[in-house]
Amino acid sequence: MIDEFEFRSDNAAGVAPEIMDAVAAANTGSALAYGADDWSERMTETVSTVFERRCDVFPVVSGTAANALALSAMCPPWGSVLCHETAHIANSECGSTSMFGGGAVMRGLAGVGSLLTPASLEHAFETTRWGDNHHSQPRVLSFTSPTDRGEVYPVETVTALAATAHGRGLRAHLDGARIANAVAALGCTPAELTWKAGIDVFSLGATKNGALSTDAIVSFDPEVSAELVYRTKRAGHVASKMRFQSAQIDAYLADGLWLRLAGRANAAMARLAEGLKGLGAELDVMPAANMVFVRSDEGLSDRLETSGLRFYRTGRDEIRFVTSFQTTDAVVDGALERFAAALR
Amino acid sequence: MIDEFEFRSDNAAGVAPEIMDAVAAANTGSALAYGADDWSERMTETVSTVFERRCDVFPVVSGTAANALALSAMCPPWGSVLCHETAHIANSECGSTSMFGGGAVMRGLAGVGSLLTPASLEHAFETTRWGDNHHSQPRVLSFTSPTDRGEVYPVETVTALAATAHGRGLRAHLDGARIANAVAALGCTPAELTWKAGIDVFSLGATKNGALSTDAIVSFDPEVSAELVYRTKRAGHVASKMRFQSAQIDAYLADGLWLRLAGRANAAMARLAEGLKGLGAELDVMPAANMVFVRSDEGLSDRLETSGLRFYRTGRDEIRFVTSFQTTDAVVDGALERFAAALR
Amino acid sequence: MIDEFEFRSDNAAGVAPEIMDAVAAANTGSALAYGADDWSERMTETVSTVFERRCDVFPVVSGTAANALALSAMCPPWGSVLCHETAHIANSECGSTSMFGGGAVMRGLAGVGSLLTPASLEHAFETTRWGDNHHSQPRVLSFTSPTDRGEVYPVETVTALAATAHGRGLRAHLDGARIANAVAALGCTPAELTWKAGIDVFSLGATKNGALSTDAIVSFDPEVSAELVYRTKRAGHVASKMRFQSAQIDAYLADGLWLRLAGRANAAMARLAEGLKGLGAELDVMPAANMVFVRSDEGLSDRLETSGLRFYRTGRDEIRFVTSFQTTDAVVDGALERFAAALR
Amino acid sequence: MIDEFEFRSDNAAGVAPEIMDAVAAANTGSALAYGADDWSERMTETVSTVFERRCDVFPVVSGTAANALALSAMCPPWGSVLCHETAHIANSECGSTSMFGGGAVMRGLAGVGSLLTPASLEHAFETTRWGDNHHSQPRVLSFTSPTDRGEVYPVETVTALAATAHGRGLRAHLDGARIANAVAALGCTPAELTWKAGIDVFSLGATKNGALSTDAIVSFDPEVSAELVYRTKRAGHVASKMRFQSAQIDAYLADGLWLRLAGRANAAMARLAEGLKGLGAELDVMPAANMVFVRSDEGLSDRLETSGLRFYRTGRDEIRFVTSFQTTDAVVDGALERFAAALR
Repeated sequence: MIDEFEFRSDNAAGVAPEIMDAVAAANTGSALAYGADDWSERMTETVSTVFERRCDVFPVVSGTAANALALSAMCPPWGSVLCHETAHIANSECGSTSMFGGGAVMRGLAGVGSLLTPASLEHAFETTRWGDNHHSQPRVLSFTSPTDRGEVYPVETVTALAATAHGRGLRAHLDGARIANAVAALGCTPAELTWKAGIDVFSLGATKNGALSTDAIVSFDPEVSAELVYRTKRAGHVASKMRFQSAQIDAYLADGLWLRLAGRANAAMARLAEGLKGLGAELDVMPAANMVFVRSDEGLSDRLETSGLRFYRTGRDEIRFVTSFQTTDAVVDGALERFAAALR
Repeated sequence: MIDEFEFRSDNAAGVAPEIMDAVAAANTGSALAYGADDWSERMTETVSTVFERRCDVFPVVSGTAANALALSAMCPPWGSVLCHETAHIANSECGSTSMFGGGAVMRGLAGVGSLLTPASLEHAFETTRWGDNHHSQPRVLSFTSPTDRGEVYPVETVTALAATAHGRGLRAHLDGARIANAVAALGCTPAELTWKAGIDVFSLGATKNGALSTDAIVSFDPEVSAELVYRTKRAGHVASKMRFQSAQIDAYLADGLWLRLAGRANAAMARLAEGLKGLGAELDVMPAANMVFVRSDEGLSDRLETSGLRFYRTGRDEIRFVTSFQTTDAVVDGALERFAAALR
Repeated sequence: MIDEFEFRSDNAAGVAPEIMDAVAAANTGSALAYGADDWSERMTETVSTVFERRCDVFPVVSGTAANALALSAMCPPWGSVLCHETAHIANSECGSTSMFGGGAVMRGLAGVGSLLTPASLEHAFETTRWGDNHHSQPRVLSFTSPTDRGEVYPVETVTALAATAHGRGLRAHLDGARIANAVAALGCTPAELTWKAGIDVFSLGATKNGALSTDAIVSFDPEVSAELVYRTKRAGHVASKMRFQSAQIDAYLADGLWLRLAGRANAAMARLAEGLKGLGAELDVMPAANMVFVRSDEGLSDRLETSGLRFYRTGRDEIRFVTSFQTTDAVVDGALERFAAALR
Repeated sequence: MIDEFEFRSDNAAGVAPEIMDAVAAANTGSALAYGADDWSERMTETVSTVFERRCDVFPVVSGTAANALALSAMCPPWGSVLCHETAHIANSECGSTSMFGGGAVMRGLAGVGSLLTPASLEHAFETTRWGDNHHSQPRVLSFTSPTDRGEVYPVETVTALAATAHGRGLRAHLDGARIANAVAALGCTPAELTWKAGIDVFSLGATKNGALSTDAIVSFDPEVSAELVYRTKRAGHVASKMRFQSAQIDAYLADGLWLRLAGRANAAMARLAEGLKGLGAELDVMPAANMVFVRSDEGLSDRLETSGLRFYRTGRDEIRFVTSFQTTDAVVDGALERFAAALR
């Protein structure tokens, strides 16, 4: 629909036709419940192939569940998860991580923008009272790429962060709610951004990028996997008709669909950002993935809204645009026209 | 597929075409995430209409989640949930209820078969040390209909149980993983089996009866609903693209689809049970819903398996058959033929 | 006070003078908080010496804490603790074990009286769905000696139970709220009843037998100990002035005080039981430790109460007497006189 | 002992003789366990009298337990506790508050020094996404007086903070680990600093100021009290021989002992601070209670340590001195002499 200038969130997009087709195709014959089906087996094969390493895959119904359950399996209750002070796991999951983690603590660190640096991690280690039982002990490093501000970690930084974490016995977790956008933006292989860089477990976001009802946890660590078998179940995230969840993840990764979808979202954002810049808009940073933050006073924001653009106000003088795999060039160009008009 | 004699579980069935269509139809335009969409609003309207009372509806991805989250909102951590000693919530959810409930205890009671009686509840009250802080205090009665043995509570018993529970300040919860089969079997209205009988909150099972990826919690109690808004989210059960979950529940209840589907499963079971009885098989009880337990020695069970029938062995000398909305007369008749042959 | 016929509970007794003296003696100079003091070090030495093996000792303020924290360190949240169906941890700690255990489940087994048998444990193993993530996986065996009915496990049974548990990968935990009474009754060494019999971790009850404000967890398993360092702290059980807790445990075990105290309680009970039997009273079983259950109709119970005896009614026709280290022969004899009079 | 220059912590001090006597005096006759005794009743009377209002008192074995259990009864699992970013409950209790609170989140706010201000609280309210279920909802304000930096809130600030909290429906909690030092410093009545200022529940610290093995939770809110009856028990903090805990709190508050003890500690600190200032030492702030932070380079810190002073290094160039009720003038003067010598 050309008249929908939807830039609020990639969550607002629909389901990719390929994934809808895969779900429909799985609706054949009977299959055992709770993952003992062919689709789930195939999904694990596909993910292992795409990531070039045998891994365990746990479809769950949300990114919140993917993060919180993974972290609960990686961190003892008396441990802490080191993350950026603005991290979703610390601020936007209503205590989910601490609940599933039995009181494990999300410890927010300062960084550069929303990005952690090896230095910020080292600083956290220095101010940790190691072995002091008054103090939650760091056990996991978790970071997000792209961040909620749209920044993408270079592979070398991921590698450095994971190495720093491993050096003190921490596991490394990647919140990959939009991991496809990061891989597409970096042009690296999925393996290079994950286990080759030292990531032990990551959240494989899919719903923001075309899936219907599932994200997934991917684990390269057999100890964590062994925990997740039970932890996903008791959290109620082992779907009865798992084949319909697994079929989504399978279709999402097979044939590079996830990267094509993310590529489209990223390209739409690049077009939008270039256009905005050309109009003299002040961007927070040039976006690497599918999200941009733009300076906008209230008057401008009001006019933009009136013009039919859908976006979020993320501060008194700031608005956010997010593109999705469904954002067409026509929608971007129409948005730019309206932006230009509102500026006048 | 006529050659699939699937009687292991209604979980093994597929998705009803009407529900698949509804999911596909929801894939239009953009919609805000996490339930702020038209489909979710319509779902609540539909459920309220079907149940003849304004209620709150929380789609979650599994029956485990539906039960455990509802109970966690109904019972304080220092409380106990009274249930049958064989209840799913006590034995088959890997501690989910105690986890979400902060250590709330499932207290198993004896009953008649798998059915609780007002007398068994009264007995539990008598042996409770009320007000003694060494002892988890009864706060919720939870029972299942149909039970995991296929028994269906008459409306009067539901009413008597709920009244007994309310008399001691307990809330009444119904695990309705197969509630459609119960309503269809009883021929009552959905309201009569639930709030009119005193039920405060129930799990509205849908996946076993044709849905794709969702069950739901239905709450008639505003205090419980207020809790569930947060508890479902932090459990990771508020799907990002909620419209595709809500559309399922909406389609499931609209136009009586759920009862037609359950009616088919029940009818297939009735045909099977009659047939088995005619062959001289020893049934646990004549089934009211879509499940039957049949006496069978190992030799017979082996021959049945070899003949292509799919079923579960639930004891040394017992097997279970479950029908679903997809079980055709032809499948039932084919199964009976094979049973007859195996008996010879 | 001769006029106090206290038989309600050994909890109702006071503090042994030797322990009160040890507490007073620890009140000298300054000492670092939270266990970094000489008394705590000495306590660990003493316990290790008495039990003939290096162990870790964690003073906590109650038996509930000792059991629940130990079990939380021995059992994953998705695990179950196998115990007798009447066990204190399952029925009388208000969900403490499930709370600290993150939703771990207490699975009650039938036994002979309140005693578990290797056969009851084997039966539980047979009915366990091993590896099925719907089902809490058995990870710990916990049993109590003396039981809440006063029964004492022979060393051979403890050994057989622990061996059976270990055979399936479970850890063995002993709730030793009254362990001194068991050791005194059996005449074995403390090592023989614990690690030599296969016990990995036990609760060392002290308050019921003369301590002021502390019981303790004793761990022979370094993995469990490593967890307990943090788990005791975050449960608020690491006392600030730990030296006054440690001094109690040290004085309790040093010089055999605990066994002398328990010996007195057991002897008082033996005298009482013999006397009751002589009067024709019907005892549940001849008590091995410091507790007896006696058949008594309501009239008799009323008369006994009127006569000044303090005891608990544990059933419609049953009363319980418990002796403590403070129960003198004179008190027992006075009680017997009153019992004889009430019988008339 | 004049040769002990103990300034590390008031935790390192011993037990006040009056409290030791009260414990010894409670060792008479038998008394029912778990708080059903005369001493516990008297304690509640005494606290209610001293605080000029009927309240409920729950002795627990540590300040960690007092804070975490109170907060767990005041805050739903999906709520947040607003506190200073350096608060003990957020940083030094190993996740205790989140564990007991079922995943409730400690949300650290900036302030002035370690003090919260009504403005910092207002700012937190403004940045709260009220009613958004992704976001833990503020339900409790918790602050500490004296703070861990020794600052004392004026009564008016306490009143303003509590009023601001109540205005948004939050409860107000005071971590009073050293509340006696605050009351003594302010010269107000205990009621003026607590419920008259709007405090709903507070931790009544006692061990740092002369008690043996107990702190307490004091609740003016019957709803919170009703929860604490069960929550303290299942946390294992209801001591079996409660009379010996209650007797401490009773003796501590009766006859103003707590304020005399705290007055001594405060006076010793005033003497020390004046002396240090006279020597030209740079104090963080002039201490109001019993704690001071002093600028000190490594060389000076080393010489001070060598001279026999016991203190903590709290930063590269900072040391901390804490006085207790046992700190005599002679000890202060001896410390000042050593400080003077180390400065040369």
